[in-house]
Amino acid sequence: MITLADVKEARERIGPLVHRTPLFGSATLSKMAGRPVYLKCENLQKTGSFKPRGALNNMMRLGPDERRRGVITISAGNHAQGVAWAASLLGIRAVVVMPAAASVTKAQAARGYGAEVILHGEISETFRRMEEIREERGLVFIHPFDDDATIAGQGTVGLEIFDDLPGVDTVVVGIGGGGLISGVALAIKESRPSVKVIGVEPTGAAVMHLSRRQGSPARLERADTIADGLAAPFAGARNFEIVEKYVDDLVLVEDSEIRSAMRTLLERCKVLAEPAGAAAAAALLSGKIPPGSGGTTAIVVSGGNVALDTLAALIRA
Amino acid sequence: MITLADVKEARERIGPLVHRTPLFGSATLSKMAGRPVYLKCENLQKTGSFKPRGALNNMMRLGPDERRRGVITISAGNHAQGVAWAASLLGIRAVVVMPAAASVTKAQAARGYGAEVILHGEISETFRRMEEIREERGLVFIHPFDDDATIAGQGTVGLEIFDDLPGVDTVVVGIGGGGLISGVALAIKESRPSVKVIGVEPTGAAVMHLSRRQGSPARLERADTIADGLAAPFAGARNFEIVEKYVDDLVLVEDSEIRSAMRTLLERCKVLAEPAGAAAAAALLSGKIPPGSGGTTAIVVSGGNVALDTLAALIRA
Repeated sequence: MITLADVKEARERIGPLVHRTPLFGSATLSKMAGRPVYLKCENLQKTGSFKPRGALNNMMRLGPDERRRGVITISAGNHAQGVAWAASLLGIRAVVVMPAAASVTKAQAARGYGAEVILHGEISETFRRMEEIREERGLVFIHPFDDDATIAGQGTVGLEIFDDLPGVDTVVVGIGGGGLISGVALAIKESRPSVKVIGVEPTGAAVMHLSRRQGSPARLERADTIADGLAAPFAGARNFEIVEKYVDDLVLVEDSEIRSAMRTLLERCKVLAEPAGAAAAAALLSGKIPPGSGGTTAIVVSGGNVALDTLAALIRA
Repeated sequence: MITLADVKEARERIGPLVHRTPLFGSATLSKMAGRPVYLKCENLQKTGSFKPRGALNNMMRLGPDERRRGVITISAGNHAQGVAWAASLLGIRAVVVMPAAASVTKAQAARGYGAEVILHGEISETFRRMEEIREERGLVFIHPFDDDATIAGQGTVGLEIFDDLPGVDTVVVGIGGGGLISGVALAIKESRPSVKVIGVEPTGAAVMHLSRRQGSPARLERADTIADGLAAPFAGARNFEIVEKYVDDLVLVEDSEIRSAMRTLLERCKVLAEPAGAAAAAALLSGKIPPGSGGTTAIVVSGGNVALDTLAALIRA
């Protein structure tokens, strides 16, 4: 398992190249939630989500031969952009395989960073296609979450929360495959074990709940949620291990609660979150954070990549 | 005319009570505009716009007798919220008179801060009604823009831009009655005269253009723009004088350009601007900033108060 030292090393490595995203308090959310609430705005990160942190940390550790071969990944969107952005920065060739139904905006964005984008099938077929291409072309796979360097990179979000909000009592983070929460939980708990870390999943894609219940990384038959960024088909083995060790509670939110949180973040906080990025706020605003996890609370707004037409439909009353 | 010392004094006075709003660079806008672009996010200010700065600076200078009498103001919305918020903070009674067609969200927000909100007629009738009530009740009028203390308060935005971006070459600000731009221009030009300050007006409410042309503060028969926050019916005398002395250029933007800038700010920068708040970005993105005003450019996103239903209509392609 990675350590706090790995996360600090990741910060040294990627710090000068990614945004130090703002963390700010919201009087409105604090009033609504009955506690001081702060937003860690990873929607303002390069490419519009936290993903470049892990992707860049991962790819900066590749040797010259691996860099020459190029990289490949699979993603519903944000990790694709993170890898494409990092590859462009480092001068590495990148192939991104996305499900056929992936967001057009996200696919275009990855292409915009110079990646070769391949749209193929449903997520399990997408995975197989990615494996085929990886082998054919000898590319290096950059895992979206189940990878030590990726996790260490995402953990830098946790270090920044501590730096900007030393009095934080509770940190709330959404869960897809578990990349972000495992990095953040490790960074937070190894720095101060008394801080509570809460993970949030949509009811329609609760793979970490299932994993915790069965005691091993679970796989989902299908995911059904508006939060495409949280709809990973399985929990990572490394991520599950870290979540089991460090995450105090897992809570579930309905899509309607996510949508309502998106509206509140936009209307009251002037912050655009995509559905996945609003999950942590949804848990807080719907009263699902366990009573013991009170005090000053930081919620991670993990991303803001949502097409405007989709947004227009989501925010209508 | 007020001086830089007044703006610095305002900062001392209001600094601990308002947000030090973030200023951050946008790679996307920089690419689109061909120069380094930074956003000064006053949409993240208390109440969702820059207005609390001037209102609070103004009201903190009132004596005990004036505070006992209470205050009154007129506003299409954001200044109403600024005054209501500052009044609530200082324990002063506030009456806010708004045009009958004012944004429901903005009226509700002013009520939410404890102000008495009166909706009445069109803007010139609204003004007369405000005068009547002020006299009847002996209230102190807090002018939305044509007031030294209000201007000094808004000028603190300029000081913060300098602190966070010492290498700034050009600052772009929207113009309604001229409160924000006069404060910012004075703070910027008295600190470093070589920095260009550009004012932006909607073609449908170009009162400062008209004033500059005729050489005196002008009055508009009617305003026609989606940017309600920039639709002041006249230019302030103090504001006009400062604009004439300090503002390098005035440019015009169409409503369609404002709408397009709102979309870009939201989709690419994840920042919600109301139409008035997107005017400066619209000038930059539509190529209207004069060639001599290049280099590192800060645009003020002056507010983000827009009802979600209105927003949904505005962002549809």
